[in-house]
Amino acid sequence: MKKTGTHQQNQISQIKASRSKFGDTGKLASLLREGSRTALARGITLIESQNELDRAAAQELLRAILPFSGNSLRIGISGVPGAGKSTFIEAFGSWLCAKGHKVAVLAVDPSSELGKGSILGDKTRMNELAANPNAFIRPSPSSGNLGGVARKTRESIYLCEAAGFDIILVETVGVGQNETAVHHMVDLFMLLALAGSGDELQGIKRGITEMADIVLVNKADGDNLARSKAARQDLTRALHFMPEKKSGWTTEIMLSSALEKTGMEEAWEIIERFEFKTKQSGYFEQHRKEQQLSWLHEQLKDSLWFAFIEHPGMSDALRNAELAVMQQNIPTGKAVEELLKFFNA
Amino acid sequence: MKKTGTHQQNQISQIKASRSKFGDTGKLASLLREGSRTALARGITLIESQNELDRAAAQELLRAILPFSGNSLRIGISGVPGAGKSTFIEAFGSWLCAKGHKVAVLAVDPSSELGKGSILGDKTRMNELAANPNAFIRPSPSSGNLGGVARKTRESIYLCEAAGFDIILVETVGVGQNETAVHHMVDLFMLLALAGSGDELQGIKRGITEMADIVLVNKADGDNLARSKAARQDLTRALHFMPEKKSGWTTEIMLSSALEKTGMEEAWEIIERFEFKTKQSGYFEQHRKEQQLSWLHEQLKDSLWFAFIEHPGMSDALRNAELAVMQQNIPTGKAVEELLKFFNA
Repeated sequence: MKKTGTHQQNQISQIKASRSKFGDTGKLASLLREGSRTALARGITLIESQNELDRAAAQELLRAILPFSGNSLRIGISGVPGAGKSTFIEAFGSWLCAKGHKVAVLAVDPSSELGKGSILGDKTRMNELAANPNAFIRPSPSSGNLGGVARKTRESIYLCEAAGFDIILVETVGVGQNETAVHHMVDLFMLLALAGSGDELQGIKRGITEMADIVLVNKADGDNLARSKAARQDLTRALHFMPEKKSGWTTEIMLSSALEKTGMEEAWEIIERFEFKTKQSGYFEQHRKEQQLSWLHEQLKDSLWFAFIEHPGMSDALRNAELAVMQQNIPTGKAVEELLKFFNA
Repeated sequence: MKKTGTHQQNQISQIKASRSKFGDTGKLASLLREGSRTALARGITLIESQNELDRAAAQELLRAILPFSGNSLRIGISGVPGAGKSTFIEAFGSWLCAKGHKVAVLAVDPSSELGKGSILGDKTRMNELAANPNAFIRPSPSSGNLGGVARKTRESIYLCEAAGFDIILVETVGVGQNETAVHHMVDLFMLLALAGSGDELQGIKRGITEMADIVLVNKADGDNLARSKAARQDLTRALHFMPEKKSGWTTEIMLSSALEKTGMEEAWEIIERFEFKTKQSGYFEQHRKEQQLSWLHEQLKDSLWFAFIEHPGMSDALRNAELAVMQQNIPTGKAVEELLKFFNA
């Protein structure tokens, strides 16, 4: 029942970390802080590694860069496939770089490994932005469940911030769970919607629209312009009935055309207004703190569960309980009680 | 590190249970099995109790009735407020009773305590059904978060089944999380939708429609009939693009009017077809087993978390970690590692 001292724990971590193939994390942190893109890419690869020694090294790296993180605006961008996310991010990212910003683009898309609707897997889709010295593009981690991918993306945000990127765009494909995960790691959430019968319905999925701080009705050009204006009106009406956001912000709906490169200015104007308003009200800081807190709790729960299932003998005990519960031999509550006693014994 | 024997554990439970104010659970179980509605109502109240002694008694009761549970068709019914759920359940429940069934109506609505959109809180909304000797109506547990309410509802389903009810209708209000919780405890999920511009959009929220095995376009009467037919067509088209269900079942869309009492026969015909098809394919049994399993895991995780936060000294340790993480003094992963060491020390 002796508690290992924090100092000793740190030493153990450091020894483990020093044995990671990624080498000296202190040096990696310095290079990254100086703006080396190679170091940033390498740091993210370290964070994505499943190797135990690398995990320890990743914690060391994070500890080193954490004091220099946080100074960015984190923007989530979502929308159904075909809404024009890549084209918009390419155009908007380039526009922001031209204004003197440093823009990092990350992605959350656990499904990409299954080959369906992978985002950013093909960097060539963002040729112009990828070539920009003030932009950094990183595809979605190609392994792991949503929880794992979300963790890696959050930690990658910190690295990008420490490397001097002041705008982080987190892209995700428009399916419920991903959005929620991204919503939990950004300051502001942007939804790309399309006008037109089928797509329109998909854009107005209530849960996701509720998350959005800005809705861009994209591809509002040519023949589509009139329909886009009608969609904006529909959306405005629909949003009217939704509960007020905790941020006090009212969702803004605007038209854009990545093709005609319109809407960048307006989008940025709205984003700046959002930032100003929420920073002034204190919501911005509060929201980040809440995100940190819920992330801590989430990770704690995951780790507890792993400790539980890796407990000696638990694998058999759990299997037996599962069988008994499936055959309705014992109430679930009873099985839980017995398994917990076994864990604590 | 000595494991307490299962026998001894059971004895402790029984002693605790015997001190519950609900008295002899064995007797309660027999009365309930004999069809006493008072015993059933009392059993559910016991299950809903937060008291520790009652929780032990509830486990005893569940253990006693579990072998007699399972013989029902569990049907989830959802829809936005105003879709006519109460009226439909009243009409459909009465219709089923007239056919010789015993129908229990339960509700999942954690939000009801907040006074917004409470369902079944007012039994008078189901006058006819409530007076039917073959029906049993129970409002949503009025306390607890969604997880707690879901647990109580699942356990109530078992009690109703042991009391001889062969059709369990679980009603929920149309907001995302509730549906998912109900979907995890029923065999078949029914969605009530409405035709007409605003409501139509809400009915077609993709996630929920994907869960539905049957969509009833309700209030398809009078002036609304033509619009309802159009809505059915729209929905059929929309569902066409959705991935195939694991059950192999294709969502059926039908019109109904609780006012004109039409659609009962058709709804029941579809439900019976669903039951027949999924029982024949083995999906029905498989699905129930999977529900049992995921419920076990859910409850285990919840209990682990409670054990964790109730660990001596954890409250302070957690608070310190939370502060450190919020102030970005240490990476979340590091904080998690240290808290787990403290828990295991």
